[in-house]
Amino acid sequence: MPELKNDVFLRALMREPVPYTPLWLMRQAGRYLPEYRETRARAGSFLNLAQNPEYACEVTLQPLRRFDFDAAILFSDILTIPHAMGLGLDFITGEGPKFAHPLRTEDDVSKLQVPDMAKLQYVFDAVALIRKELDGKVPLIGFAGSPWTIACYMVEGQGSSDYRLIKSMMYSRPDLVHRILDINAQATLQYLNQQVEAGAQAVMIFDSWGGVLADNMFDDFSLQYTRRVISGLKRERDGRKVPVIVFTKGGGQWLERIAQCGADAVGLDWTVNLGQARQRINDSVALQGNLDPNVLFGGEEAVRAQARSVIDDFGPVGNGGHVFNLGHGISQFTPPEAVAALVDEVHTYSRSKHSQS
Amino acid sequence: MPELKNDVFLRALMREPVPYTPLWLMRQAGRYLPEYRETRARAGSFLNLAQNPEYACEVTLQPLRRFDFDAAILFSDILTIPHAMGLGLDFITGEGPKFAHPLRTEDDVSKLQVPDMAKLQYVFDAVALIRKELDGKVPLIGFAGSPWTIACYMVEGQGSSDYRLIKSMMYSRPDLVHRILDINAQATLQYLNQQVEAGAQAVMIFDSWGGVLADNMFDDFSLQYTRRVISGLKRERDGRKVPVIVFTKGGGQWLERIAQCGADAVGLDWTVNLGQARQRINDSVALQGNLDPNVLFGGEEAVRAQARSVIDDFGPVGNGGHVFNLGHGISQFTPPEAVAALVDEVHTYSRSKHSQS
Repeated sequence: MPELKNDVFLRALMREPVPYTPLWLMRQAGRYLPEYRETRARAGSFLNLAQNPEYACEVTLQPLRRFDFDAAILFSDILTIPHAMGLGLDFITGEGPKFAHPLRTEDDVSKLQVPDMAKLQYVFDAVALIRKELDGKVPLIGFAGSPWTIACYMVEGQGSSDYRLIKSMMYSRPDLVHRILDINAQATLQYLNQQVEAGAQAVMIFDSWGGVLADNMFDDFSLQYTRRVISGLKRERDGRKVPVIVFTKGGGQWLERIAQCGADAVGLDWTVNLGQARQRINDSVALQGNLDPNVLFGGEEAVRAQARSVIDDFGPVGNGGHVFNLGHGISQFTPPEAVAALVDEVHTYSRSKHSQS
Repeated sequence: MPELKNDVFLRALMREPVPYTPLWLMRQAGRYLPEYRETRARAGSFLNLAQNPEYACEVTLQPLRRFDFDAAILFSDILTIPHAMGLGLDFITGEGPKFAHPLRTEDDVSKLQVPDMAKLQYVFDAVALIRKELDGKVPLIGFAGSPWTIACYMVEGQGSSDYRLIKSMMYSRPDLVHRILDINAQATLQYLNQQVEAGAQAVMIFDSWGGVLADNMFDDFSLQYTRRVISGLKRERDGRKVPVIVFTKGGGQWLERIAQCGADAVGLDWTVNLGQARQRINDSVALQGNLDPNVLFGGEEAVRAQARSVIDDFGPVGNGGHVFNLGHGISQFTPPEAVAALVDEVHTYSRSKHSQS
């Protein structure tokens, strides 16, 4: 493997000194880029795009040709695992993902099994190919959904505004939901370890729907399974630690608990003040975030001012670690020039916060 | 006006001693009740139902015939104000509210005016009629949306998953959004005062979308306008204080700030632990909430156990005040018998928490 030329992202995750605040954006390889839309059109469907390592590699690299991001993230989807479990994933234009065979009955749940990882070889092939093509430019992030988040999709069968089906099952038959979560955790662990083996230099667990749980349910139904995945992860690659990031959308209130799940960094959405967050956890992990993606619609001046506000909120870096990101995936409607302004402002403005520390 | 027979709700809001924890449910007059669906079918549309005082009174009283709730809440909608402003409200089946003339340009915003309250007379007539028909059984809650929340609908034109339009305006032309909010606050103040004049014994402000704002935007674009409304409210009625409840969905992290906005009680969703919430604000206001509405799909045993869990989280009432509620409106799919079990458990189980205090 070629030498890594930019390790600012990896060092910030480990709370080591860095010259500036690194950044990447959730869904940076995505529909806001015309070249992505062009590749997707050639692929014919989202699933073809994600399942073909050449296409996945191509779209992963596209944003790095435009912007000076400090990390690449594998182009894939959190629903690859349930797809490999045989739930029949499809992406319906304008509606999002949908499963032909959601888990609704005890029988559905009892038949669920950890899938053969060979069915996910296309993901590992994509990781290996991207690593080769990146040629050490920046590190590559592998990822998976949290066991709870993919369980939401597996039971609901699609996105949901109220999570009524999985929560009905959780409150009436918690044993069934625990069985799904147990299998998801086993599958996710194997899946992430194979991504690391194929070349991923950091991994991120997206607990996108952890924040919909009640305070007294979050630990039992989401966090403990995330913790289980992390505790089994291979944490070294090329003689270097593989950092783990956990992002629970809407989980700011539970930061103290999330920060103890074994991750090196916690992602936060824009409802959290980063300075207060650091105090609450005493810089025990790095923080990733947390600009409102809608700032990117406010024009260059607002983009630069709000980026500075996030960096100021974090404050002098000291013993902390900060990776700049949005608090959610970038919108498909984002003008690419807003991203260029954001990257420039973060890289330029943040230098003063690092020289102080 | 007849004497109020059950003032447990009003006293709990003022943190006065009560024999048990009072409860009511957001959207308790709603689609989960067959008799509501029957009345709505007769009315022909949601707007006809809300704009006809007889129908509004009828559906307001329906849940009180079935369940031993400690308060009634006016049947209406938070979008009556923008409707009176001429934005052209319609409720499309399966899609929710939609405005024919959303605010998108500087010109749209500059034409916006505080509506003549005479256009909302049907609401005040409904309040007066409900008070008469209630005959002192329980207090009547009046309500409005927060200036920010109705502004979201006025700019987006309908519900939204990302609030891209209003946030684009907020970040690029904050002056326009402040103008909308200023007018909304003036209108909301007049509207709530007239509800109190017509007979409302408590008022609630639904800041349903405050929680989508970034930490550094919430005070400026939502909370300060809510505070402005509250500071102008007539707070006495029939020689008794009219308590104010503010509910910011997703605002648990900002509880300390919200608790200082002048309200007597703060509503919380299910992501917050009530005991920790009390400590954070040192019982300076009462709390309302916060059962996950999906618990009502878990069967009677789960309903009772989770209701006890909320009451236990709050703890011995002491100098605090607790009004039991859901953390969001009741789902239209809820089995009414689950509500009956909830009411019974809250009333029965909570007595021990009050006798201890």
